[in-house]
Amino acid sequence: MKLSEKEIEQIALGASLLGTGGGGDPHVGKLMALQAVKKHGPVDLIKVEDVPDDALVVPAAMMGAPTVLVEKIPNGNEFIKAFEELGSFLGKKVFATFPIEAGGVNSMIPIAVAANLGLPIVDCDGMGRAFPELQMVTFHLFGETASPMVLADEKGNSVILNAISNKWAENLARNLVVEMGGEAMISIYSLTGKQLKRAAIRNILSYSAEIGKLIMETQASKKDTTEQLINKIKGFKLFKGKITDILRKTTSGFNFGTAKIDGIEENKGDHFSIEFQNENLIAKKDDCVLASVPDLICILDLETATPITTEALKYGRRVTVIGIPCDEKWRTEKGIETVGPRYFGYDIDYVPVEKLIEGGVSK
Amino acid sequence: MKLSEKEIEQIALGASLLGTGGGGDPHVGKLMALQAVKKHGPVDLIKVEDVPDDALVVPAAMMGAPTVLVEKIPNGNEFIKAFEELGSFLGKKVFATFPIEAGGVNSMIPIAVAANLGLPIVDCDGMGRAFPELQMVTFHLFGETASPMVLADEKGNSVILNAISNKWAENLARNLVVEMGGEAMISIYSLTGKQLKRAAIRNILSYSAEIGKLIMETQASKKDTTEQLINKIKGFKLFKGKITDILRKTTSGFNFGTAKIDGIEENKGDHFSIEFQNENLIAKKDDCVLASVPDLICILDLETATPITTEALKYGRRVTVIGIPCDEKWRTEKGIETVGPRYFGYDIDYVPVEKLIEGGVSK
Repeated sequence: MKLSEKEIEQIALGASLLGTGGGGDPHVGKLMALQAVKKHGPVDLIKVEDVPDDALVVPAAMMGAPTVLVEKIPNGNEFIKAFEELGSFLGKKVFATFPIEAGGVNSMIPIAVAANLGLPIVDCDGMGRAFPELQMVTFHLFGETASPMVLADEKGNSVILNAISNKWAENLARNLVVEMGGEAMISIYSLTGKQLKRAAIRNILSYSAEIGKLIMETQASKKDTTEQLINKIKGFKLFKGKITDILRKTTSGFNFGTAKIDGIEENKGDHFSIEFQNENLIAKKDDCVLASVPDLICILDLETATPITTEALKYGRRVTVIGIPCDEKWRTEKGIETVGPRYFGYDIDYVPVEKLIEGGVSK
Repeated sequence: MKLSEKEIEQIALGASLLGTGGGGDPHVGKLMALQAVKKHGPVDLIKVEDVPDDALVVPAAMMGAPTVLVEKIPNGNEFIKAFEELGSFLGKKVFATFPIEAGGVNSMIPIAVAANLGLPIVDCDGMGRAFPELQMVTFHLFGETASPMVLADEKGNSVILNAISNKWAENLARNLVVEMGGEAMISIYSLTGKQLKRAAIRNILSYSAEIGKLIMETQASKKDTTEQLINKIKGFKLFKGKITDILRKTTSGFNFGTAKIDGIEENKGDHFSIEFQNENLIAKKDDCVLASVPDLICILDLETATPITTEALKYGRRVTVIGIPCDEKWRTEKGIETVGPRYFGYDIDYVPVEKLIEGGVSK
């Protein structure tokens, strides 16, 4: 399969749903990928199984507060630089690239890198969604190391990190990103084909394209096909509402915040809230949890089903909030320890969204 | 000349005077160098002129808040690691090492590295004293770059930085050092012999040894030979006094503070103060400047002439404060721009200490 303009439009849109509020603005991401494909031609999308066991694959991504990226557009060289510097440090030819997470920007950057360098892109990622921190990848669960990782900013600064753990990589890189102005491009978790096959979440790009296509059809038909979308992604409608308040804080290189949402239509009279750290973490009705990380909490525009990133949440916007079960790899002990609600400081046990929905809300 | 136990004792003591309050505690530094020399034998001290023009020389140093080093002792591997990683990144055999600055710790680390790796040490540095920031070296004045630089901590984390300017190297490295726990070992400003000859300040280790020897003789004779010491180092006695107050703040990876000192003996009735950022920056009598960066402001114990680092300043300690003219390289336009009082936020012009002394104090 080739990724050209049409597929890029679809992936950017679909991935921004799987980005659960994070992963960057799909418009910014799309422009970077479209420009690269226009200049260098379409990119080959290959299957995880097509990567030879001993081949080197290297993801490319943006790290930082998504709000910053909207104002501080990459110059386009820094992600190539981050990618190439890591390849050169490893001293091995890079076979292909792939996204570290699904998101409006982070699904697009590897496409731009692949187009620029004439590499194929592998149809997989390390999250099956977006998460805010570097150790929150399935590769971490399988003992793979983030290091050596490279950071590069748009000014021309670059750094090669060799951290003793993936959490140390996160801590050191996060500080650098803040100093670099709030965001930087990274190359991280270089893997062999064998390691990729063991730990990657499959088909995320083709899946994003399908979701994006469906949203576009919804928008073209001008009919409310949100139900159809929810069925397609095996999700659950959590509620419909109107945003009444947004609290935001961009600190330590993250966007933190809470969106307060008053129910409308069938949810009229109810009060909901969503807490986020780059990505949506917890959806609540009053004090009762409707869904939590690592399950996906996605906010869609009520009329157009367009996914809304946390930085685009605005007072008065009418939204449908849906929950989607996360990949099974996250529903392990180490998975929950790495990305469960307690990691983010919430004193609650993780309960799968499908159980919360079946059994009614739980405290 | 060989550096063995005796010379190390002398250099540690003398360099802590030239460290002007910074550069690290000479006791901690000495232990690292003594241990290395005991295990691997004495180190060859060579002249700048003995370094071939095309040879690679790489300094090794500690970066961070000196107060931290007193409690968080290096494990001894991290400075070897920082040094070797830079050599390996540059892909060239390292001919010799040398200190980046004069100071109780930073004159010692290159001796320990040299002993461990069987390299000679060059009798020079990049400051002729100690300064708090990475761009504050004579190499910077001659257009040399701090990058690539390596940082390594005692836990095993390491980083290779490629910054677009020496100030960016300082900013990025400082953030990393804070995250690493307040101090890290660095290798920085790798130079060719030709570059070293152009920009280095000569003979700092042999000069430190002479100063150290003189202080030891003072202490052994139990006579006040501070005058003799001041003559030797071509300095000026600024005042004698008793410390009455210390304000300290360890922030952004630096030790900031002010020492208030009441005059004693010939200075009885006068009030003095010294402001520092790792190193002593400004000495004042009331609002009048007696000496400022880049000239050296050294605080010595009144009885023993032992140099006192800023972290060892204590209420009640009786001290002699001396000023020493800095190296001529600092007294240029770029030198004053880089390390003059205005860089550190003081709204005063730099006036050489010998003029301030001659002409009386200036506002």
